[in-house]
Amino acid sequence: MSYKDRETLSPGTELDTDTLIAELKWDNNGLVAAIAQQYDSKDVLMLAWMNETALRETLQTGRACYWSRSRGKLWRKGEESGQVQLLKEIRIDCDGDTLLLLVDQTGPACHTGRRSCFYTRLYPEPAQILTAPLIDPATLYSK
Amino acid sequence: MSYKDRETLSPGTELDTDTLIAELKWDNNGLVAAIAQQYDSKDVLMLAWMNETALRETLQTGRACYWSRSRGKLWRKGEESGQVQLLKEIRIDCDGDTLLLLVDQTGPACHTGRRSCFYTRLYPEPAQILTAPLIDPATLYSK
Repeated sequence: MSYKDRETLSPGTELDTDTLIAELKWDNNGLVAAIAQQYDSKDVLMLAWMNETALRETLQTGRACYWSRSRGKLWRKGEESGQVQLLKEIRIDCDGDTLLLLVDQTGPACHTGRRSCFYTRLYPEPAQILTAPLIDPATLYSK
Repeated sequence: MSYKDRETLSPGTELDTDTLIAELKWDNNGLVAAIAQQYDSKDVLMLAWMNETALRETLQTGRACYWSRSRGKLWRKGEESGQVQLLKEIRIDCDGDTLLLLVDQTGPACHTGRRSCFYTRLYPEPAQILTAPLIDPATLYSK
C-alpha cells in the first residue's frame, strides 16, 4: 500500500507505523520537511528537516529531533538552548513528504529568542517586524 | 541588510518588500517552502513551494499561487478545483527560506477532498486516518 492507496481510507482506519515511515518520500538528501506547531495555541513555530534517524529518535524520546542541514548532524532541539519541544502528535501529509509536529515548546522556538521563527511580515504592507525576543539569545546559548 | 542583520530589529520596524523578496534564500531550484495555514482556525492546510514568479503573482492577485514541482509549472491553487486560497498575510521565517501564508481556504485544500493534507496520524499510536473528504475528489476535478 502507498500514500496514494491510503487516500480513500475512512477515518479511524488503523495503519502500521513502520510501513508509514518506510514509505515516506525522502528527498535526494534523505530528508522530509517537518513543520512544528504549538499544540494548543496552534501557532506555527518553525520549519525544519528530518531524516529517518531523527524521526525515530523523536518517536522514541518524545522530544523533537531534527537534521540540521547547515551543521550536517542531528539537532536535538533544545540541547544547547534548553528550549525543548515535547511531542504531542505527528501527522503526515497526503503524499508523504511533509510532517506536521504538534509540540509543546518550552520558551522560544527561534534562535533569535522569539517564540516563532515567523516574525517578519511580508504582506500586507508595510512589511515589518512583528514580535520581540522573549529571551536575549546571548543568554540562551551561553549555557 | 540581510535576514541575519534584521534579527535584532524591534517590533513595528518597517521593511522594504522588494528587499525582503530579493534576499529570500531560494534553494537550488529557485524555490522556498510555503506553509498554508487557515487564518482563523489556525489549522495547517498544506506545504507547497514558490518561486519568485509565484510569490509575486500571489502578492498581486491576493490568491495563493505556487510552483508545482511535479508538473513543473505555476500552480494557481484552485484553478482546476475551484478551491482557492484568499491571501490574508504572508510571514517569512528568520533565515528567509520559508514562507507562512495565512489564507482563507474555500472548501478542501487537499486533492483528496479533505480540508487539510495532514489527515494521517503517525503518533501517538495507533497510527490512523483522521478525517474524511468534505467533497468527493472525482467531483472536484471533473469541472
